[in-house]
Amino acid sequence: MNAGQSCDPPVVVGVDVGGTKLMAVALRGEEVLGAAKVPTPASGLGVLDAIVNLVDDLESAGFLTDALGVGAPGLVDLEGRLRFAPNLADADGLELRAELGSRMGLRRSGLLDRKAGGPSRPDQTMGSQGPDIVIDNDATCATAGELALGAMRGVRDGLMVTLGSGIGGGIVVGGNLFRGAHGFAGEVGHMVIDPGGPMCACGKRGCFETYASGNALAQLAREAAQAGRGAAILERAGGSIESLRGEHVTQAAAEGDSEAEALLARLGWWLGLGLANLAGIFDPQMIVVGGGLAEAGEAVLGPARLAFAELIEGARFRPPIPIVAAALGEKAGAIGAAVVARRSLLRARRAAMTGDG
Amino acid sequence: MNAGQSCDPPVVVGVDVGGTKLMAVALRGEEVLGAAKVPTPASGLGVLDAIVNLVDDLESAGFLTDALGVGAPGLVDLEGRLRFAPNLADADGLELRAELGSRMGLRRSGLLDRKAGGPSRPDQTMGSQGPDIVIDNDATCATAGELALGAMRGVRDGLMVTLGSGIGGGIVVGGNLFRGAHGFAGEVGHMVIDPGGPMCACGKRGCFETYASGNALAQLAREAAQAGRGAAILERAGGSIESLRGEHVTQAAAEGDSEAEALLARLGWWLGLGLANLAGIFDPQMIVVGGGLAEAGEAVLGPARLAFAELIEGARFRPPIPIVAAALGEKAGAIGAAVVARRSLLRARRAAMTGDG
Repeated sequence: MNAGQSCDPPVVVGVDVGGTKLMAVALRGEEVLGAAKVPTPASGLGVLDAIVNLVDDLESAGFLTDALGVGAPGLVDLEGRLRFAPNLADADGLELRAELGSRMGLRRSGLLDRKAGGPSRPDQTMGSQGPDIVIDNDATCATAGELALGAMRGVRDGLMVTLGSGIGGGIVVGGNLFRGAHGFAGEVGHMVIDPGGPMCACGKRGCFETYASGNALAQLAREAAQAGRGAAILERAGGSIESLRGEHVTQAAAEGDSEAEALLARLGWWLGLGLANLAGIFDPQMIVVGGGLAEAGEAVLGPARLAFAELIEGARFRPPIPIVAAALGEKAGAIGAAVVARRSLLRARRAAMTGDG
Repeated sequence: MNAGQSCDPPVVVGVDVGGTKLMAVALRGEEVLGAAKVPTPASGLGVLDAIVNLVDDLESAGFLTDALGVGAPGLVDLEGRLRFAPNLADADGLELRAELGSRMGLRRSGLLDRKAGGPSRPDQTMGSQGPDIVIDNDATCATAGELALGAMRGVRDGLMVTLGSGIGGGIVVGGNLFRGAHGFAGEVGHMVIDPGGPMCACGKRGCFETYASGNALAQLAREAAQAGRGAAILERAGGSIESLRGEHVTQAAAEGDSEAEALLARLGWWLGLGLANLAGIFDPQMIVVGGGLAEAGEAVLGPARLAFAELIEGARFRPPIPIVAAALGEKAGAIGAAVVARRSLLRARRAAMTGDG
């Protein structure tokens, strides 16, 4: 524990582990000191190494990380273990907190080589202990980010849904993150909305994320291409149906391709259905939509709002519930992971000061 | 307001407005002083009169009601207005709190005739003001009941689902009822779980309650009868397919009829699916199942638990979540409405005492 060793504003690094990329930011106060991203490695151990390297990259700007927050997709328990991660290869049971702790500690002490090109400077301040490390669910982190610095500032009861490779969710109750009895709350992507629907990576059929995630959009594009439609989309994937990804669709839609717009509208309808389900259950003040797919903006949010109004129980009898894009964009998860880690660090420092005093 | 006028343990009456019956209880401390029920009238105004008569009936035991709580199905706003009630005829927009307030006040003052046979005694203590009146969602009330006096005592994060004509829900966060931003939280019955499914009374297709409510069970029984199956069930409805109700199935199942058991098992599968969705979202410590259909007990809860284990994301990676029957049985909603009203009354009394002091 580094608690109590400094009164300077801490520098915290947040890493968002997505299905396709790892995004990292360094945060001091509300200032983003730097950001970096790499493709998601194909194994859990690869993810650990990539996180350590991202921290190294960011620290080459000349600071030392006081705390590290990592947002991971799936069931993250309160001890920082990734119990189940359907959208991440070879990562079920990964001891994220413990493994990162030992790697960061070794790296700090100089016993583990820093990445080629990185500065070699054994840590004088911290000894061989790494930074404080906090692991949480990726969408919970994104929600923490939007709550602290983004679209949910000041919100008491709100929801965030992140559209990445899968779909995650974060719940705000009384102005605080709600984590549930075991830390697993907010797994909205595996709400079954059609028991006869497509197979999901989790092993069930018809989960929300089989209809409204980045992977779902890629699947829509593949089906269109197989039917001979969507030439402008397919072109962006180099003509290879297997290579089609959601971002090829959002890029084509951004340039006005009508087939791409139609696919986003179809996805938006399912998004609206899922959000209507969630709003009926929670009755939030507002819903924030984040994740890579939210970059499609109104092309997906417009149709989602129409479907939401059609599908929420008693729409004309209740106040409207705004559905807005995440203010922090694709960095919401990483910034939020940093926010979560900083909160934990400051709590530990306060506890240590009280103990000293 | 009667606040501050007495320090005796208050007598509170709770009324649960169901799709088929109105159930009322009088409560003092944890003691149920009396209970009464009548079939649900066919109009919103009829419901108002029936509630007043139920209070009269209970008061004939010799007490005066200090506070009245009413649980109503659908969207109840924070001012006690029933905004939308898909399972109650002619009740959308009903000003439950205001209308009951004026009726109870008139009744107390003797200006409105008491029900034939009831005692006629103008209220000396309270003047012409009626009791304090609180209106809330029926399933929220049932949850308050189970939390205060039933299966959820001491629970921090829990869920209750009520299976009546429709399906309602109540959410417990940090040991308290969670009502959402506008008081509408917990409307789990209109979560769409199959967009191509049967029409729901709310106007959508494939809501949870079209698969797992009392009305859904009646529909399963009708379809079986039309296919020439379920003779033992149909017999209980006097041989009339149109008269078939969910309780005919649960009665037949209780006597070992295998067709009835099969229908309850099918319903239980859908119940398990809906509960798995909700548990994925909330990560509760436990789930309580109440409402009339919960009287079927293990015939429906057994299959629901199996489906739940099959359908919750990452079942083998998370602690088990118990699914139990409501401890207060069919009176959970009425007792809970009384509990909600008493809490409001005591809060008002405390405020009045502080104001006096």
